[in-house]
Amino acid sequence: MKLSNIDYSLYFVTDRSLAGGRATLEIVTAAVNGGASIVQLREKQCSTLEFIEQALSVKAFLKTRNIPLIINDRVDVAQAVKADGVHLGQTDMPLETARGILGDTMLIGISAECLADAIAAEKGGADYLGVSPIYATPTKTDTAPALGLKGLREIRQAVKLPLVGIGGLKRDNTAAVIRNGADGVAVISAIVAADDPEAAARELLQVIKEAQKT
Amino acid sequence: MKLSNIDYSLYFVTDRSLAGGRATLEIVTAAVNGGASIVQLREKQCSTLEFIEQALSVKAFLKTRNIPLIINDRVDVAQAVKADGVHLGQTDMPLETARGILGDTMLIGISAECLADAIAAEKGGADYLGVSPIYATPTKTDTAPALGLKGLREIRQAVKLPLVGIGGLKRDNTAAVIRNGADGVAVISAIVAADDPEAAARELLQVIKEAQKT
Repeated sequence: MKLSNIDYSLYFVTDRSLAGGRATLEIVTAAVNGGASIVQLREKQCSTLEFIEQALSVKAFLKTRNIPLIINDRVDVAQAVKADGVHLGQTDMPLETARGILGDTMLIGISAECLADAIAAEKGGADYLGVSPIYATPTKTDTAPALGLKGLREIRQAVKLPLVGIGGLKRDNTAAVIRNGADGVAVISAIVAADDPEAAARELLQVIKEAQKT
Repeated sequence: MKLSNIDYSLYFVTDRSLAGGRATLEIVTAAVNGGASIVQLREKQCSTLEFIEQALSVKAFLKTRNIPLIINDRVDVAQAVKADGVHLGQTDMPLETARGILGDTMLIGISAECLADAIAAEKGGADYLGVSPIYATPTKTDTAPALGLKGLREIRQAVKLPLVGIGGLKRDNTAAVIRNGADGVAVISAIVAADDPEAAARELLQVIKEAQKT
């Protein structure tokens, strides 16, 4: 059965291309030590075998910390490593197809790039939404126009699912995302590309926790 | 349940990058009209959604001709479109993992690049082997050294599974592959890159059928 009561506060998404040659497991370890509460492994270039081996090593570590592992895009890799969930963008496998394959064994997160995406994903049985991009972002170049805080609020009012804001989020603009309805923030470059990923995660989590109180 | 009594004689593998801008469905239709007996869809660059949509359109056509559809590498895409099988290379999902996910619902073909690969795949429950590369090939640049006819014969003597030779096969060197133990030949560029893919497939099949008689 799939996990419940996930803490989406600081949702870390890996990106090997921004890691400056550091190993993915090293960055994940630092992010979790700093307070990342959930980790998504995203690999767009490597072979399926390499993705599976990477995911198994990250999962072995995350299990010791009781942190969920989400696999980006690849339902087959998620099944192969018995991940906690899969995250699907609008050009990945359709939600209905993925749920048909996975049943209720795994969380399915959906990237919502507009209000219509969010409503459709909730109706279709998604477990959480990545609302993106909140701001323009250098990490992904194929994204929809920025939603801004107004777009996030509209989605918050329309759906009950946990929402994670993503896109251009860093220490100074994260609090506003939480205050406008997100349950957490997802970051890539703010952690991956930091000189000290653990410190970067810790500072982000502090901002998030402060904002969640208000 | 998975198909049985597959005709592996002319196993056509798609490659969009060699198609000179022609649509995959157009090339597949021509190949099947020319006599391709099984088709593998191989997409390395497009999104998962595009791969699934492509596979659905190819499957709809192949179903009308009773030709099996095999998906390269992506177990999730194969599940999504209910393909007849999946073909896994040595850097794709391990056979045991794939069988665990798919059970006996689907054929699993394995690329054997040496005798040890072939023996392991047969022990692991593969349904057929792609023995590759028989000859050096321009289509794939990450392959093992060419096995030659001697390597093919060694594998033929060691395993009972259906064998499909692949790698550098064209009209003038195909008969020898059949005569040295292959049940069929797999081709990419000999059909995809041909000016007339239907005629190319027809000529290849004729050579294969002649060689199968002797």
